[in-house]
Amino acid sequence: MSTHPQKNIRYFWEDLPVGTTVEMGSITVDRDEVIAFASRYDPQPFHLDDEAAAQSMFGKLAASGWHTCAMAMGLMVRNFLHESASLGSPGLEQLKWLKPVYPGDVLTLRQRIVESRPMKSRPDVGLTRALWEMFNQHGEQVLLMDGYGMFRRRAPGAQDSDAQNG
Amino acid sequence: MSTHPQKNIRYFWEDLPVGTTVEMGSITVDRDEVIAFASRYDPQPFHLDDEAAAQSMFGKLAASGWHTCAMAMGLMVRNFLHESASLGSPGLEQLKWLKPVYPGDVLTLRQRIVESRPMKSRPDVGLTRALWEMFNQHGEQVLLMDGYGMFRRRAPGAQDSDAQNG
Repeated sequence: MSTHPQKNIRYFWEDLPVGTTVEMGSITVDRDEVIAFASRYDPQPFHLDDEAAAQSMFGKLAASGWHTCAMAMGLMVRNFLHESASLGSPGLEQLKWLKPVYPGDVLTLRQRIVESRPMKSRPDVGLTRALWEMFNQHGEQVLLMDGYGMFRRRAPGAQDSDAQNG
Repeated sequence: MSTHPQKNIRYFWEDLPVGTTVEMGSITVDRDEVIAFASRYDPQPFHLDDEAAAQSMFGKLAASGWHTCAMAMGLMVRNFLHESASLGSPGLEQLKWLKPVYPGDVLTLRQRIVESRPMKSRPDVGLTRALWEMFNQHGEQVLLMDGYGMFRRRAPGAQDSDAQNG
């Protein structure tokens, strides 16, 4: 099922073999947005208030880990998924917040495909497992997401049907 | 290190043994917020537009999975972490988006502690592993988050020091 029958698709499942690396651009972390996100979704003092943050393990005002994930997703959608035959994700195998993220940081996202296989129950769909790694301007990795995505195939399941019948 | 030296703490590490269940309240999913969140962080058509959503696997406008996580975090902070000696989380062992979440849904969050141990490197801190399960108004589970949290201890490390010395 396509949500974008009209769009120009660059990445079907076959276009994402193991080893594929996709650079997904960068974003500068905005202080007002850090506070706005935290006020609504993660109102812990070290995400809201400079003084409380100075006394915390972060040392200064830091973004919610969920805000970091959301910023990563924004890059992924705008710089990859919009050109793909993505059918969504069932979830992540791991999610690691490796370093604090601060206002003014410049975060860069990269995707590496580490597994790929056809989906047996749906001959028109393939699964990929990817690592999404986000780095700050100092080259420190701040985020790791590791999970599966589903993509439509260019050539729906011919080989698998043969294999199953053979 | 405390970010809230003044607050009234109900949950230290010792107060969260394996088997503890904490109900964390509920939230009604707001349509305007679904669209606002997706516009900024997950601009896929099925999170933004009724017509595109009708043609997608969701069938109607659905919330971003990251928005669902953010709503769960909001409940967790307001109904649990604010009363706890939490020192944050290094990440999740798994994150599953099990069912779509739609505007108007009423989501309820529950935490269950499944592991608990002192942190050997920091005698004032204990680790817990928890499952956070979110359900909709039909009793269907929509989200599973499984991960570790760090909490300060009421009685920092006396037993461990004894054990190490003994």
